Amino acid sequence: MSVNGLAEEELRIRKIKEGTVIDHITAGHALSVLRILGMAGKDNVVSIAMNVSSHRLGKKDIVKVENRELSAEEVDKIALIAPKATINIIRNYVVVEKQQPKIPKIIRGIVKCDNIMCISNNKEPIQSTFFLEREDPLRLRCYYCNRIMDKTDILRQF
Amino acid sequence: MSVNGLAEEELRIRKIKEGTVIDHITAGHALSVLRILGMAGKDNVVSIAMNVSSHRLGKKDIVKVENRELSAEEVDKIALIAPKATINIIRNYVVVEKQQPKIPKIIRGIVKCDNIMCISNNKEPIQSTFFLEREDPLRLRCYYCNRIMDKTDILRQF
Repeated sequence: MSVNGLAEEELRIRKIKEGTVIDHITAGHALSVLRILGMAGKDNVVSIAMNVSSHRLGKKDIVKVENRELSAEEVDKIALIAPKATINIIRNYVVVEKQQPKIPKIIRGIVKCDNIMCISNNKEPIQSTFFLEREDPLRLRCYYCNRIMDKTDILRQF
Repeated sequence: MSVNGLAEEELRIRKIKEGTVIDHITAGHALSVLRILGMAGKDNVVSIAMNVSSHRLGKKDIVKVENRELSAEEVDKIALIAPKATINIIRNYVVVEKQQPKIPKIIRGIVKCDNIMCISNNKEPIQSTFFLEREDPLRLRCYYCNRIMDKTDILRQF
């Protein structure tokens, strides 16, 4: 039997009525996902399970946010740090939509280039732009200055 | 009916077999409790619920850490930031011990004085020492330099 897309025996955190379940998060990254969602200091009910067993990943984290859906930018950021994540939109206890976020080939405006001399960090009206060179382990290349950024660099920003 | 000390209808995160349940955490402070426990990057299974309803507190957070009990220092730190917290030790699904952590009247060695000139911050073999002036909102006074520290100052250290 499956509730909110998870087998019942895995349900360390209970099913939610309305909201979003982010499952198959790389183990240890749940708190980065919370930061991406800007949940600190918010009133939403959030439940988190960390380091639970997963057939697919060995270990995984899960985040459930009640009464909230995610923006496209939040989904892209989650894809960057948790490329195996699945995002389930829940309405009245039922999964009404399931997304497998994909890292776009070109990543615009959601990661800042670590090179402070990069033109995308100047006052020019230029949006940061990276090419996806590799998904896992993550490797991005800045379109403007060729700076390589890896997952550790990106986690520092989220 | 009560499982792990919580009414079933409150059980946003499921009962655990062995470990520690920290309940009645001031809403929004679950992540500070995780930092106190040094759980980032550890393998323990952790489940967290944030901003859930509580008869006693209005809103509260809960943290459950499997297969781990807390040190006296960790309990004192949790008391400082979540004075209403209750700590339940669970063995084989049963609460075998329930603690209501109390902030000690004299707090030694767990908070650093924010005054960099304070003798407790020098190389002297002196342990930081604070008097508890008020519990909630928290107000501590340094024994050596009389510096007043409040909860915001202390959260920055945890």
